[in-house]
Formats: sequence, C-alpha cells, structure tokens
Amino acid sequence: MERVAIIGASMTQFGQRDAWICELLAQAGQECLEDADVSPDAIDHLYVSNMASGEFEGQTGIPNALAHDLAAMPAYTARIDQTSSSGGAGVYAAWQSVASGASEMTMLVGGEKMTHRTTAEATDVIASITHPVEYKHGVTLPSFAGLTARLYLETYDAPRESLAKVAVKNHKNGVDNPHAQFQKEVDLETVLDSPIVADPLRLYDFCPITDGSAALMFCPESVAQEYTDNYAVVSGVGGATDTHVVHERSDPTTMRGVVESSQQAYEMADLGPEDVDVAELHDMFTILEFLQAEGVGFFEKGEAWKAVEEGVTERDGDLPINTSGGLKSKGHPLGASGVAQVYEIYKQVLGEAGPRQVDADVGLATNVGGFGNCVSTTILEGN
Amino acid sequence: MERVAIIGASMTQFGQRDAWICELLAQAGQECLEDADVSPDAIDHLYVSNMASGEFEGQTGIPNALAHDLAAMPAYTARIDQTSSSGGAGVYAAWQSVASGASEMTMLVGGEKMTHRTTAEATDVIASITHPVEYKHGVTLPSFAGLTARLYLETYDAPRESLAKVAVKNHKNGVDNPHAQFQKEVDLETVLDSPIVADPLRLYDFCPITDGSAALMFCPESVAQEYTDNYAVVSGVGGATDTHVVHERSDPTTMRGVVESSQQAYEMADLGPEDVDVAELHDMFTILEFLQAEGVGFFEKGEAWKAVEEGVTERDGDLPINTSGGLKSKGHPLGASGVAQVYEIYKQVLGEAGPRQVDADVGLATNVGGFGNCVSTTILEGN
Repeated sequence: MERVAIIGASMTQFGQRDAWICELLAQAGQECLEDADVSPDAIDHLYVSNMASGEFEGQTGIPNALAHDLAAMPAYTARIDQTSSSGGAGVYAAWQSVASGASEMTMLVGGEKMTHRTTAEATDVIASITHPVEYKHGVTLPSFAGLTARLYLETYDAPRESLAKVAVKNHKNGVDNPHAQFQKEVDLETVLDSPIVADPLRLYDFCPITDGSAALMFCPESVAQEYTDNYAVVSGVGGATDTHVVHERSDPTTMRGVVESSQQAYEMADLGPEDVDVAELHDMFTILEFLQAEGVGFFEKGEAWKAVEEGVTERDGDLPINTSGGLKSKGHPLGASGVAQVYEIYKQVLGEAGPRQVDADVGLATNVGGFGNCVSTTILEGN
Repeated sequence: MERVAIIGASMTQFGQRDAWICELLAQAGQECLEDADVSPDAIDHLYVSNMASGEFEGQTGIPNALAHDLAAMPAYTARIDQTSSSGGAGVYAAWQSVASGASEMTMLVGGEKMTHRTTAEATDVIASITHPVEYKHGVTLPSFAGLTARLYLETYDAPRESLAKVAVKNHKNGVDNPHAQFQKEVDLETVLDSPIVADPLRLYDFCPITDGSAALMFCPESVAQEYTDNYAVVSGVGGATDTHVVHERSDPTTMRGVVESSQQAYEMADLGPEDVDVAELHDMFTILEFLQAEGVGFFEKGEAWKAVEEGVTERDGDLPINTSGGLKSKGHPLGASGVAQVYEIYKQVLGEAGPRQVDADVGLATNVGGFGNCVSTTILEGN
C-alpha cells in the first residue's frame, strides 16, 4: 500500500475570536489550500473535526457549509466527533480515506468556537462526555484530573512542583508560537499560588477555553511528489478506547487508550518510543502530560515527573514535549486541538518550526478524548 | 485490494421508544454481534452514526459509552455525523476502515432518539442543518420540499396524485416490516386529505419523527469466509456534496450529490443503474423518491412519477423501491436511517427479507443529508 503524505497545514490564531465556527473553519481551510498550493477542485474528501457546534452555536451541517465556503463541492464531507480527541480521530479518518483509495486529496479542518459561552456552560457541555452514572453525581473532567493527580503524586512520591513545572515549560514554549492563546511565561510561584480548582490542581494546571481552527492536507505519496519536495509521511496511526466509566479503571494513572493507540502507531511505523524526537501530548491538565509520556513509552511508569524536573522535556532537552506550548498555553479548541498537534509535528519534522524548531526527524502526537476514553496517536516523519 | 464484506446486521423496533440513545445503540449493537456471531473482542473499530445526541439529550461521547456497554474496549471509536445522512457516511467510513487495512472487523451502529422532544423542537434541531443565510428567514427542510415539489409537478406535468402514490406504496411495504414505525396501509384519499404542511405537500408526504437504531458488521472478504458462507459484498461506495445554500442551485429538482455519489459507486462496482434489482431511497418527503430515482439513473429526468403511476417501483414491479417501507412508514431516526437502508439491501441480496423479499442480486441505497447537501450511495451484492 502506498504511503500517505501531508503536503500542507495551517492554523488560525487560537484564543478568543470574534468569528463563528464556520468562519474559523473557512479561514484555516483557505490557508491550508494556499499552503499546499492545491485547488479546491482537487479535493475529494473534506472532513471536519468538531465536538459540539450544535450545542455551542446551534449550527449543524458545518462540513457542508465549509464545502460551500471553500468552493470544494462536490467533495464528499463528514464530521468526525470523538469529543476532545475529534482532531486525532479526524487525522485517522483522513489517513483511512487516502489509504483505502477512496480519496486522492483529503483536507481535514478541525475547529471549535467556545468562548462566547460562560465557563459553567462550556464545562457542562464538556462534562456531557462523561458516563451518566458519573455525570449525575456532578463529576466533571477537572474533578477526574484532581483525583488522578493526587493519586499519582502519592503513589510515585512526586513533588507537587513537578506538575507546576509542566505549566511553566509549556507557557515558555508558547511564547514562541504566534498562534498561541497565551504568549506569556509564567513562573512557578504564579502556578502554585493560583486558585484551587480541583485539589491539588490549581487554575494554571488547566488549559483555557479557546476558539480556533487548524487544517491539514493528505494525499498519497506519489501525488505529494507532484506538489512538493518537502512533505511529511504519516508513518503510523492508531486509535483505542479505555472504559467510559472512569471509576471502573483498576489504575486511573494508566491511560490504556494511550498505551494501545501508541503501540498500534509504533507497529505500523516500525519504530519505538526511543526513535521519537519530538512529541505533542494532550496536556488539558498538567497531570495528563505525565500519564501520556509514560503511556506512549517515553519514560517508565511513575518516572515522567523526574524528566520534567531534570529538563529532559524542555525544548533544549533530549525529548522536547509540547514545543507548540501544548494545550496549556496554545489553547484547546476541542475539535481543533488534535489537528493543531499534528500541525506542530509537521512543522517540526519539515524543519519549518521557526524559533520553536528542535532537531527532529520523527514526531508523535497523542490526542485524548474525555478522560482518556478515546485516544488517537499519529507518527510523522520528514520525507 | 481485497473486497469488503458485511457479515451481520440488526435493527431495533423503530418508532416511539422508551429508551435513551445509549440503550438503543447497545440493543442494535448486541443483536448485530449475535447475528454475525462475532465476539466483542474481535472488533477493531466501532463507529456510531448520529446527528445530534448532544442537542436532543445532552449526551455526547456516545461511541465511548457503546464500547463500554458492549465490552468492545479497546476498539477504536468515533462518531460520524453528516446530519440526516450520517448512516450512509458511517457505511462509507466503515468501508474505508477495512479497505485501508486499519481494521479487520468494524461495527457500525447508527441511532437517534427524538420523540421525547416536541415536533417544533425536533424540527428546529434539524433546521440547524440549513445555511444561516436561509435559516434566518425561517426556512426549514419541509419548506424546501414543498417548493421543490411544486416546481417538479409544474415542470414535468406530473399529477399531484403521483406523490401521494409514493406514500401509499411505501406504507404498503411497511406492513410487512416488523421493525417499521407504521405497519399500516393508507389509501390515496387519506394522503390527499391530510393537513397541508408545505403546499402542495401534506402530512402524509412526510416521514415521521422516530427513535431507533441499526447496525452492520464489516470485514475483509477473506475474514468473512471464516464466519459464514452467506455474506454481502460492498461492491460500490460513493459520497458527494451539493451546495449548502439551496437557493443557489440552478435546478433544485436535480440532486447533484445523488448524481455524483451514485456515479462513483457504479464506477467502483463496475455496474450501472440497469443492473440494480432493488433500491432504498431517502424518502424523507415523497418528492425526494422521484428526485433520487432520477438522480441515480433509474429513470430519465422528469419521468420517475410515471414509474410510480405504472407500478414499476412496487414490490412486484420491475424495480422495487423502498421495500422496507422507506423512511415514510419505517420511520427516520436520523443517524440510523442510512444504516437501516443498507440493512434492508443486505437482507434482500441475501434472500433473507421474508415477506418483503424480491428477486435481487444487486441492491443500492442512497442516503441524503439536509436537502441533498451531502449524499452517500452504497451498492451491495450477494456473495
């Protein structure tokens, strides 16, 4: 089977945007067409990754609206929803559309518009991901994060400061990302003194509520070579679920979906965690960066916090994580986040990441839905 | 590339159900596992076709809930939404997952729970499919249907009764479908005397609001042969969009997405409309059966109404259409409908359609989102 390539990418400014979902999608889509130098006529499939345009804005059918706005008709369209991992699921779907031969040119656009809703409203929409047996007790995703953070710190004798250092690192990276919601460093004291949200986690342990969109262009490698000499190959993809009912997990500090999906991606790519040069992990909460860094095999179980303490995951460390700023400072527009993760890896393996550039031939992105309920992992290599 | 097969199918009772969306999905999923004699452990991918569980019930993440309820973890899951054609889009996605090699066993479950909402509420959720430039003027899908029906009748000099005869025919078929919402014949006078909804269309020209779920099991043909001697082959799939803004269409009686998606499916299957023995068309409104029967090439433009008048599309006619009862009498639980269409074709090409059985080796299903905004076409053949 021919390999699947990515030949173009774009992302809008993340943050509070005075534009509705269809405008955000159209902006990223148009910029991706230009980046890839592809005509809208050439698009066979147009996927939109989005969790909740109906709930947030009362608008559905947004892939059709996008096909219209980009003049991409009669391209086939669909919306791919896997809650907060919709972007990663969209990457998996786009890969399948090309690998199956159904499409010779697939554009994926992920996006979400959330900031016009109050924090309580947005949190409630997101909490509708949780299983009703937990939701009815008032459980939200931040509460799972607090419980798991406490368990992790106690089980592995990790200092509270190690979590805060994830936030400090990712904010530092975000300063060099012009698309990030926050381009501003924070110091350890600011994180540790911020208001408690879900003990032991505080405000700066959480990603913000964000509007934004990102896009990627996929095609077979032979088609890619007609467009450019400089493309990335999707060498591994994988996806898996963990139980939807979090309290049924025997060890909440192990994210089974992360473990399974990364193993699938490594197997397809014929690579292992030791081959990865740069990674984007789904740091919706600081604790998730530890759980995922261990889940994808970068560090032994209970050891990820040491890597942060020792600077291993800094941009000048041995294994840079979240060079984009991560969800923490770049922002987390649900359906866009997984697409934007792969955008960052694409830029890194092509050597086009500007001031954020690290030495990277192989990059990995892991996108997590709910509290690890559904996970997609993508591995890219430069050509 | 190896062919993709369907080795099992199920559907729940359609109608007003005292069960919420996750229970409906789990029921169809469990019955499909039993029908295919597949263990949940064997499932690699689990797709859910659904338009609006968030808007109708405040519940998202339903594919994760289903993976949990069926003990199908760690199967990869995603929700495929293409409004009222979500089921057909799910079939296309399931085909791609197997054809790409990503999955050796994909279950697709489509479902929607709507009847707990008022007609006005349900209509408004569905109207959110329309483009805002039309939605803000109070346009709903039934209003498009009325306008297009009038245009068709006038342009092609078709009698009003021909539309009513679609309803009569499909209700007659529904009598023999134990899963149908209405298992009851209606006569021409009842249709023609029913209350006006969108002139010239009356209540009986419209499908009902429905709860229900349906499921299909996909795998490579070589794997199918390990499970059964009696399976269907997905010989053609296709998908396409028309403009999202209906008033921009030069001829609203031509459904471009239907034309394009069926041509793709015919080309893949190396078949033409003359080879099709039975079809399920998306008769959300009676007029749509005409537009689609012409769009997929069964009849010349403006001639489909004659086929209904002459009984060609009856169960004992040359080309039976909507043997299941169609959306008109079987019901239209949005995300389930396209899956249930392929369920009917699967049963027909395997010779398992019971009292509805017609002589069929090749069957076609066309699922329409919005007012033809996005269309998926599937062609099945018996093995």
